[in-house]
Amino acid sequence: MSPRHLFPFLLLMLTSLSAFSQSRPRDLGVQLGVMAPGPLNAITDVAGVRVGHTTLIEGDSIRTGVTAILPHGEDLYQQKVPAAIYLGNGYGKLAGYSQVRELGELETPIVLTNTLSVPTAMSALVTACLRDNPDVQSVNAVVGETNDGYLNDIRGRHVTEADVLAALQNAADGPVPEGNVGAGTGTSCFGWKGGIGTTSRRLPESLGDYTVGVLVQTNFGGVLQIGGVPVGPLLGQYYFRDELESHADGSCMIVVATDAPLGPRNLERLAKRAMLGLARTGGIASNGSGDYVIAFSTAPENRIRTDGGRTRTVTEMSNGAVSPLFLAAIEATEEAIINSLFAAEAMTGRDGHHRDALPVEKVLEMLKK
Amino acid sequence: MSPRHLFPFLLLMLTSLSAFSQSRPRDLGVQLGVMAPGPLNAITDVAGVRVGHTTLIEGDSIRTGVTAILPHGEDLYQQKVPAAIYLGNGYGKLAGYSQVRELGELETPIVLTNTLSVPTAMSALVTACLRDNPDVQSVNAVVGETNDGYLNDIRGRHVTEADVLAALQNAADGPVPEGNVGAGTGTSCFGWKGGIGTTSRRLPESLGDYTVGVLVQTNFGGVLQIGGVPVGPLLGQYYFRDELESHADGSCMIVVATDAPLGPRNLERLAKRAMLGLARTGGIASNGSGDYVIAFSTAPENRIRTDGGRTRTVTEMSNGAVSPLFLAAIEATEEAIINSLFAAEAMTGRDGHHRDALPVEKVLEMLKK
Amino acid sequence: MSPRHLFPFLLLMLTSLSAFSQSRPRDLGVQLGVMAPGPLNAITDVAGVRVGHTTLIEGDSIRTGVTAILPHGEDLYQQKVPAAIYLGNGYGKLAGYSQVRELGELETPIVLTNTLSVPTAMSALVTACLRDNPDVQSVNAVVGETNDGYLNDIRGRHVTEADVLAALQNAADGPVPEGNVGAGTGTSCFGWKGGIGTTSRRLPESLGDYTVGVLVQTNFGGVLQIGGVPVGPLLGQYYFRDELESHADGSCMIVVATDAPLGPRNLERLAKRAMLGLARTGGIASNGSGDYVIAFSTAPENRIRTDGGRTRTVTEMSNGAVSPLFLAAIEATEEAIINSLFAAEAMTGRDGHHRDALPVEKVLEMLKK
Amino acid sequence: MSPRHLFPFLLLMLTSLSAFSQSRPRDLGVQLGVMAPGPLNAITDVAGVRVGHTTLIEGDSIRTGVTAILPHGEDLYQQKVPAAIYLGNGYGKLAGYSQVRELGELETPIVLTNTLSVPTAMSALVTACLRDNPDVQSVNAVVGETNDGYLNDIRGRHVTEADVLAALQNAADGPVPEGNVGAGTGTSCFGWKGGIGTTSRRLPESLGDYTVGVLVQTNFGGVLQIGGVPVGPLLGQYYFRDELESHADGSCMIVVATDAPLGPRNLERLAKRAMLGLARTGGIASNGSGDYVIAFSTAPENRIRTDGGRTRTVTEMSNGAVSPLFLAAIEATEEAIINSLFAAEAMTGRDGHHRDALPVEKVLEMLKK
Repeated sequence: MSPRHLFPFLLLMLTSLSAFSQSRPRDLGVQLGVMAPGPLNAITDVAGVRVGHTTLIEGDSIRTGVTAILPHGEDLYQQKVPAAIYLGNGYGKLAGYSQVRELGELETPIVLTNTLSVPTAMSALVTACLRDNPDVQSVNAVVGETNDGYLNDIRGRHVTEADVLAALQNAADGPVPEGNVGAGTGTSCFGWKGGIGTTSRRLPESLGDYTVGVLVQTNFGGVLQIGGVPVGPLLGQYYFRDELESHADGSCMIVVATDAPLGPRNLERLAKRAMLGLARTGGIASNGSGDYVIAFSTAPENRIRTDGGRTRTVTEMSNGAVSPLFLAAIEATEEAIINSLFAAEAMTGRDGHHRDALPVEKVLEMLKK
Repeated sequence: MSPRHLFPFLLLMLTSLSAFSQSRPRDLGVQLGVMAPGPLNAITDVAGVRVGHTTLIEGDSIRTGVTAILPHGEDLYQQKVPAAIYLGNGYGKLAGYSQVRELGELETPIVLTNTLSVPTAMSALVTACLRDNPDVQSVNAVVGETNDGYLNDIRGRHVTEADVLAALQNAADGPVPEGNVGAGTGTSCFGWKGGIGTTSRRLPESLGDYTVGVLVQTNFGGVLQIGGVPVGPLLGQYYFRDELESHADGSCMIVVATDAPLGPRNLERLAKRAMLGLARTGGIASNGSGDYVIAFSTAPENRIRTDGGRTRTVTEMSNGAVSPLFLAAIEATEEAIINSLFAAEAMTGRDGHHRDALPVEKVLEMLKK
Repeated sequence: MSPRHLFPFLLLMLTSLSAFSQSRPRDLGVQLGVMAPGPLNAITDVAGVRVGHTTLIEGDSIRTGVTAILPHGEDLYQQKVPAAIYLGNGYGKLAGYSQVRELGELETPIVLTNTLSVPTAMSALVTACLRDNPDVQSVNAVVGETNDGYLNDIRGRHVTEADVLAALQNAADGPVPEGNVGAGTGTSCFGWKGGIGTTSRRLPESLGDYTVGVLVQTNFGGVLQIGGVPVGPLLGQYYFRDELESHADGSCMIVVATDAPLGPRNLERLAKRAMLGLARTGGIASNGSGDYVIAFSTAPENRIRTDGGRTRTVTEMSNGAVSPLFLAAIEATEEAIINSLFAAEAMTGRDGHHRDALPVEKVLEMLKK
Repeated sequence: MSPRHLFPFLLLMLTSLSAFSQSRPRDLGVQLGVMAPGPLNAITDVAGVRVGHTTLIEGDSIRTGVTAILPHGEDLYQQKVPAAIYLGNGYGKLAGYSQVRELGELETPIVLTNTLSVPTAMSALVTACLRDNPDVQSVNAVVGETNDGYLNDIRGRHVTEADVLAALQNAADGPVPEGNVGAGTGTSCFGWKGGIGTTSRRLPESLGDYTVGVLVQTNFGGVLQIGGVPVGPLLGQYYFRDELESHADGSCMIVVATDAPLGPRNLERLAKRAMLGLARTGGIASNGSGDYVIAFSTAPENRIRTDGGRTRTVTEMSNGAVSPLFLAAIEATEEAIINSLFAAEAMTGRDGHHRDALPVEKVLEMLKK
């Protein structure tokens, strides 16, 4: 066991401070979309949702981590939530897809990490579930990933079960650290340093007063635009500038939470809209990009109790009422991606590889024009 | 039989002239995306592709029509092309989906029309196929639609088989009329007059010299942005301005043609990217929006001959080489939608309903800033 | 208008008498499966479900028809039912798939007919819906088909809108005619005369007292087995006997009704099981077979009212309780197919083509052994 | 490291001898289907395919193992094969689905094991791939599972990476041990002992001389029938006998190999047919059954080389020629399942749980009648 395991909480605290030290785009006057965010402008605006990070920055080449998203505070295996996963571009190693699609429910927290650490994260989720549920013999671990192998020694598979359990353990509500934290520690986006980003949108009372929250792990490419300004081309850094480069590859994991009473079918439609938000930042879902959206509803009356009876009564949103939620998911995803770019700081990692941070000052000037 | 059937070609000519009378955005300095268009900046830049329109404008309330897209000049039933259909949002009455998905091929031209005229258009495609293929007993007609019922007396079902056959008959290569023509005659988009739009993108020689062409029938809503400028909010016309309005509904039919040798799997991926192009214009794929993308490849060596043998040899593009085509489909769709808005002129129709044209002058001023 | 339209009800009556004149397999001692049927052993055992046929037998070559299935007695557009469609093998021209998948609901009756008459049937469903709903501008007609072109002059497209409206009009509860009626008039199955078949299964009170009803239009091939006895091989008639014959092609439309409170996701799973029932008869879902299953729930509390509010309360069956329904759908489909074969009588049609009836006496002898 | 790791090969040998000691159904006169098997009547009849088992039987409660299927003898990451996965019933923890669906290719061997050991098996596949490919940073491990928790101490997670690597290492062509071996060591099927089963079908020269091979890991329930004889009901052991029992749950992993030049689309259709074979044994794909079919083509000319160029030339089977392969997959799956039941021997495991073997003598008597 490496000595770094003595310090995860310390590291997390420092990283968090760092992550909070920059202002967020909206605070700097960059307003994306027409809907209003919730009080924290974070996925944790959806009541009950908690987020935990384990950030692994060690030596010259370990730049990775784990992010966990928990829909509520009870045991998820006993109180599952309606869920859906949309395959934006199915490259990648997401675990747990088929059972979520078949049963329409989530029975573990969602864990995000790096590509080669998916088995470790699954194993940790199984460990946690078996520990808390003495009779369970089957558990569907949901794990997403992006490939941080440019900055991180990904082949070293440095994430341990303990790291994953720590992220689950330290999950909290309130503000969510962004940028180089958790599963976003070593990621790259549009050629700059990527990371974790989060936002929310709240519907007015007349439309149900629902909240949609989004958290992203950004590690993809394309032609960056912010609020319509072609930032990538203006800064000379974008996919297709050099015809043959393949820097568009990478991935984006998107988690969408809502307290609106959506069942799996409408959650899948909501998840699908998150890809439209990614498109608005200039993402192209390139061939090797693993773009997945996991959506769940926290509506308390719709939880699926393992010991439930033959039938249950659920509240279901009418098809005709979901469009405002769609717009919310689009806007929240767009802004969450931009948030990740503003929060992420420059990083040097494996083999001296380096990613600059998005030059926020320059970008703000462009946007003012 | 109504007297209008004596004049379809005349009407078409007039409409076409009208459609060509406005300058296109790119000619006016609005450059969307980073890739270069083909010579016509139209779906007909893909060699062999032909487009035909029948435009029905009659009396106070008939504002509808038919648009046909033909992948090549031979009989399609005898020489099918690889194809895929992506369900962006599966509201709507698209015909022919399941067989295209199962067999991966297109055996009729694609016809676009209004929602309630889909059966008529299918019937006409069957008529044409039976006429040209004396032994055929089964044919999979592919028909898409959007709902032009705001301006058009859609319940009157004024499109006839003859109208559909005329669109097939007058299909031609060369420049494609845009705006209030064919299936776009009576449509609305972002609260303004919508219609037909088309574009293309051409890959450089180093990437294969392939062309991607797009044609759209725009009839949907959202929050219009052009080149990142929030045109909808600036002009005070957008979804969600008034919380309860549902003007986001409508639909968008998108046809993507390419000469790149893609099979059905990669064509479906290409089709999926067109929705990212729609997202860049501010479309949200609202609940009642029938957003479909039909993609086909014209690569001559990959045609599927009905009298073929047990196996055939096909050229297949590597997964790793398709990302530039993805970007092309995104950019071409974005621009085709904007083209449709620039080309469409104000129209008054059923019950005095009126749609303004997008105020192009104002928009150009906004974009210059 | 051809004179035959004066006699549709007469024809129907005669055909029905004929259809009822043979005993059904279960009456003859052929018991398939382990679950008990409902009182009629028909899809109409699901309360409220009604079935109507129009049978077209005229001259030497018209051997076709229409079958309509109505989930309940109210206007379906105003009171939609949860529904799903499963693509067993997506060859074929089924109309209405994508909207059912997207919205999870059925808003017209289900109509079955021949392949080339799908547009006519759609048109008739639109006509009926517009007539009954003065403001409706969009309606998703669900029409299935099989290809009866061996016995029927299918290229003549002899089904009219009036024929379809007649089937809707004469829909009734009670016993359902089987064999050479309605959409099964001209079909072939396993090399013998096919047709319409129907059955039901009823769950015991301890499991919820639900009913599953099935109706099939059989027009497919394979290696017929009944109750495990390889009837096809024993009678020397089966796919693959002559290596190169393609008589496996054809199609099977399957409609599954239940009063169990299933939503679209579990209805799709139920629909999927019907294909397992088809497999038990020796069906193989060959390349050119259009095998579709349309499932809906009649649970009154789950109807979707067009004028409903933002949310509604629905009863939902637990995933863990659905397996008995799965078995019911499998068994009911298997028996419905066999019923169609027992009921169908020999027929001569187009160009002197002839299909023998399944030799029931011989088969019964085989089964007794 | 537990001492059992000293003896895996020994255990395997003994188990294999045991597995070969019983005669297979076909040798005993039970002929299922109308097509001819290949020389070994095993998945290894598809040239190049190899199978390896690690069988873990230790103490009172370890009854599990690993089975690996390798499409060819070269490095799969460098020479991927076209592949598809069909979700028969998507309960279960299959790893690798989404990337296979998106890219249509398999880049690791297929590993089968128990439900809670999927992460370990994935990890081992990653280990093996990284070891053999020094620059690889991303690998899509394909792992299937069934739940052997009735006989096996599944919560103990006794499968190690070494066990998985051993199964890969000892993979061989030639006859394949069946019954209580590898991933089938602790499984149950129709209430009796299940296990591994395998078969093949060979098309005549006139149809292309192709082979379809199947391997199954049987752990599911329903109403067992063999060659149409209702063995389950006759022996008083079947789902639904006791209305409330849920013994139908469990899972079936099915691997389909062929040397026919099928691309991913037709491989998915082939995979889908395997479920029809399962249906013919009386399987019902109950709610909690993880029924997955993984299909791949070994056609040498269609391998996907990682260092390939922009396009490649592939041989593709015509849609019209695939139906005989469909029948082959159905028949081979049916017989493979029955083979697993005939080969599996009675076993006692965790907490004294016991599964009888299928009483082969009695069954043969029934079948003779």
